[in-house]
Amino acid sequence: MAELLKGGPVAKAITERNKQAVSELQSKGITPTLAIVRLGEKPGDLAYERGALKRAEKTGVQVKQFVFPEEMTEEALLDEIGKINQDDSIHGVLMFRPLPKHIDEKKVCEALAPEKDMDGITSGSMAGVFMDSPIGYPPCTAEAVMEMLDHYGIVLKGRKATIFGRSLVIGKPVAMMLMARHATITVCHSRTKSDDFVEAGRDADIVITALGRAKMIGADKLGEEQIIIDVGINVDEEGNLCGDVDFAEAEPKAAAITPVPGGVGNVTTAVLMKHVIRAASL
Amino acid sequence: MAELLKGGPVAKAITERNKQAVSELQSKGITPTLAIVRLGEKPGDLAYERGALKRAEKTGVQVKQFVFPEEMTEEALLDEIGKINQDDSIHGVLMFRPLPKHIDEKKVCEALAPEKDMDGITSGSMAGVFMDSPIGYPPCTAEAVMEMLDHYGIVLKGRKATIFGRSLVIGKPVAMMLMARHATITVCHSRTKSDDFVEAGRDADIVITALGRAKMIGADKLGEEQIIIDVGINVDEEGNLCGDVDFAEAEPKAAAITPVPGGVGNVTTAVLMKHVIRAASL
Repeated sequence: MAELLKGGPVAKAITERNKQAVSELQSKGITPTLAIVRLGEKPGDLAYERGALKRAEKTGVQVKQFVFPEEMTEEALLDEIGKINQDDSIHGVLMFRPLPKHIDEKKVCEALAPEKDMDGITSGSMAGVFMDSPIGYPPCTAEAVMEMLDHYGIVLKGRKATIFGRSLVIGKPVAMMLMARHATITVCHSRTKSDDFVEAGRDADIVITALGRAKMIGADKLGEEQIIIDVGINVDEEGNLCGDVDFAEAEPKAAAITPVPGGVGNVTTAVLMKHVIRAASL
Repeated sequence: MAELLKGGPVAKAITERNKQAVSELQSKGITPTLAIVRLGEKPGDLAYERGALKRAEKTGVQVKQFVFPEEMTEEALLDEIGKINQDDSIHGVLMFRPLPKHIDEKKVCEALAPEKDMDGITSGSMAGVFMDSPIGYPPCTAEAVMEMLDHYGIVLKGRKATIFGRSLVIGKPVAMMLMARHATITVCHSRTKSDDFVEAGRDADIVITALGRAKMIGADKLGEEQIIIDVGINVDEEGNLCGDVDFAEAEPKAAAITPVPGGVGNVTTAVLMKHVIRAASL
């Protein structure tokens, strides 16, 4: 039976370290402060926000909420971002995306000061991830994958990792972060031939899935005794949350596997707080 | 016998297109102009510079040479970069690296305006490559690899490419550019286990080598009927130029292979001119 790589203990351990860092900052009169920028009331955004608020409270991070109507103009949003950039009491920003369609999301992301970009949405942060250089911050979910691997003591150096998915939020940054830690990487995506897809899945020591396709990775695409980190959060035919991996098929073959829900998703807000604390320390 | 993927015809074709673009710019009163910044008189720099000057002349691109003593201070160099950034008659900059050790190379690279960064040395250009977004310019050698593949009509979509090397100048950007064109990528490097290294080499449809190790990729690490692009330029035991691939062993197995010298290396200055022309057009 595979080891179950739960996110909860990872989030808890990060939060313990975060709390320590917060009390050190507070002794210097600094309260790490996160701005959350949200347009409209999308249920997904609200759910994540609740999680972030709870995590912030546990950690000792202050949150300032900037909630605007969905109809807000791009100009007005840019104006608010400008104010936040200049507000020294705010150390970092989480902005929910996608933004409404009438707004040029790229432009708004770029308007954010890279040093306040807690979730890897600016080109500065992207360059930092690509160059393995301390500019900005990686996307929280991508870093949460690394936190999971490290927490459970999984060796990366010289191991073969296959990443399913090439998004800027997970697939690409995780590939870069694994390579910086000396893993050999293969990135598969929607245009990968099906034979190659299967082979890359079976051949890997570590499998990371971020496809957003319910139970797409079954036993046929997996090898024996692998480490499986499932970043997908999908809804299956019965309306239940599930990952990209078919857990029932994968678990008996795997050495270790993340559950969905209860895996990587539980770690992202702890990483977000870590970023805010780092930003407040600089 | 493998098709020989020579760089000369590729450079010539790019230069023909470049010349066309230059005459269109000239009819608008614009002469695309490249600044070459060089500290000291390193033979490698001088050789590349001669090639660039020749290519510029053929293309109709003007070159302004900024040659400084190796002892130049960082401050003085930053000052010159600042002036070049503000000089509207200069569209792009090629700066030879590595810079002398007393200079913070990262700082100097970042000082360059991304829109004048012709060779992918700023974090702006790096973000552009990573995000597949038109910010800055990819490193010329990385783009030269793509030009080779395209010139010879090599299909990328859905094909398996193995990249040997993870440098910021070639390995990583080529991996990103191949993935943007829908190839499935594997990146191997010095920490890849030898079995995995061999397997990744044998399994690929397209092999790109940028290791800087003479004849390291022999027949044992290659499959049948592959496309092999060798970016390495090394000196073998007999003092002759050679690639990362053992050409004599690889050629009989390959479908197509670049010679070294005479391969990718011949294409980089043509790509450099393409970048200058694009910068002058914006």
